[in-house]
Amino acid sequence: MFEQLGLIGCGLMGGSFALALKQAGLVNRVVGYSKSPSTTDRARQLGVIDVEAPSALLAVAGADIVLVAVPVSATEATLKAIKHLVTPQMLVMDVGSTKADVVQAARRALRDQVGSFVPAHPITGREVSGVEHADAELYSGRQVILTPTERTLTAQLQKAEEVWTALGCRVTSMSPESHDEAFAAVSHLPHLLAFSLVNSITGQAQADTFLSLAGPGFRDFTRIAASDPKVWRDVLLANRDELLAQSKLFQQALSQLENAIRTDDAQALEDMLTLASETRAHWRMGAQRKKSP
Amino acid sequence: MFEQLGLIGCGLMGGSFALALKQAGLVNRVVGYSKSPSTTDRARQLGVIDVEAPSALLAVAGADIVLVAVPVSATEATLKAIKHLVTPQMLVMDVGSTKADVVQAARRALRDQVGSFVPAHPITGREVSGVEHADAELYSGRQVILTPTERTLTAQLQKAEEVWTALGCRVTSMSPESHDEAFAAVSHLPHLLAFSLVNSITGQAQADTFLSLAGPGFRDFTRIAASDPKVWRDVLLANRDELLAQSKLFQQALSQLENAIRTDDAQALEDMLTLASETRAHWRMGAQRKKSP
Repeated sequence: MFEQLGLIGCGLMGGSFALALKQAGLVNRVVGYSKSPSTTDRARQLGVIDVEAPSALLAVAGADIVLVAVPVSATEATLKAIKHLVTPQMLVMDVGSTKADVVQAARRALRDQVGSFVPAHPITGREVSGVEHADAELYSGRQVILTPTERTLTAQLQKAEEVWTALGCRVTSMSPESHDEAFAAVSHLPHLLAFSLVNSITGQAQADTFLSLAGPGFRDFTRIAASDPKVWRDVLLANRDELLAQSKLFQQALSQLENAIRTDDAQALEDMLTLASETRAHWRMGAQRKKSP
Repeated sequence: MFEQLGLIGCGLMGGSFALALKQAGLVNRVVGYSKSPSTTDRARQLGVIDVEAPSALLAVAGADIVLVAVPVSATEATLKAIKHLVTPQMLVMDVGSTKADVVQAARRALRDQVGSFVPAHPITGREVSGVEHADAELYSGRQVILTPTERTLTAQLQKAEEVWTALGCRVTSMSPESHDEAFAAVSHLPHLLAFSLVNSITGQAQADTFLSLAGPGFRDFTRIAASDPKVWRDVLLANRDELLAQSKLFQQALSQLENAIRTDDAQALEDMLTLASETRAHWRMGAQRKKSP
């Protein structure tokens, strides 16, 4: 399907994409670049990439598909660096967890070549980072959200849908703004809360004792708190307004539960817990949503 | 090791204990009682118990080991109901997630027989409840916290340690107060936050859309929000003071992160995320804690 992947950012997400394309027989050659030369070197040693490029621009030379897999705040500089080699035949994608800022960065950086860029957010991840954890199966069975703009070329959008589908993903399209609103609620806020809980415990004198007693509930609740700090620093800042709005709604829901606890209102508390428990018990990851009438 | 288990409460925790004892060859017969006759009936059909008892008291008749596996607010009434058949040779335990309230309930209910009671909290659970999910492996490899009091008989405490150890658990003892303080931080608060997050999303007009997009981070973060509402209503109320104190510390940690986001202070944000990420990445469930000098 593709001759050459230009991979910029050989971490968990980028490296896994390269391995998945290779495993599916969708690419002949992967040319990779990472900001840290030791990462690029390691990616080559691990067989994640075939050739090390000395710059982002040279990773793009000769590529018909390009993946930018860097923290979202680095997207604009990266796209500017490769702009001169982006062609209308090339498919360029990112994998960032925010999309409105990425789309704006792409418009500024790519200008007339922005039609080649298809903003993408695969709904997957790991609590570990780095090319050592790259995994050809990371994307398999996951949703991928594409947020094309009015300038995205139809041919590129279709190619993007085909490549993610070929990797076993279910592809959905929506506007960058709708994307960021939804993921503030279901991803960025949970990360913020998990980071906060761990820091709240760490700040206490008995932190070591508390942590030694924690069980599987804590393990799963805080798994995402081990996520890459630079990646999440960027995500939380890029989607600030939606995130803070969701955090406010969360704090209202928390206050309602706390009030029921403080006033010993067992029935009100049970009703609220039942609502949450039933909602969560019936939720299935990746289930099609009900169509509005 | 034991002749007869008297099981009061044939749900996930109780049913799993019965299956685990049987699988380990530690008991010859299980006599069970649940408040709902259909649950008791189902437990017998599934082979979790051998004999249905028509009352809690009759489940205890002839038992040398008794497990009370009911929501913590029902502990006192349950222990009162069985008091007349509790003997100094019998080992009576609970599996509640709070311990100070359970110890007080046991003192009031059992009076002179309180020495037979060993308060226990196995650090395990599932997001599903009911005897249908009972699993002989639920306790395997988990920690169990015992919170004996000065009146607990040494022989019973030793038997309790032996039976949990035989089920593959690591047994730790501490005071009921230390237990409740630690579990407010690492278990009760995470449950409260997970319930709050789900309700916060459910309360929004786009809840269905948001939930249809949620991925593995949301899945793990909210797993415990599907927990049994009656069990958690009791836990959150029973450990109210410690829980609200931990929630306050959490909200302070959350505010610090929000402030860094609001003021676009990328360095402060990254530092706080790094602290959380490194703490969580190094945490291992059930690891021995460092000894204080």
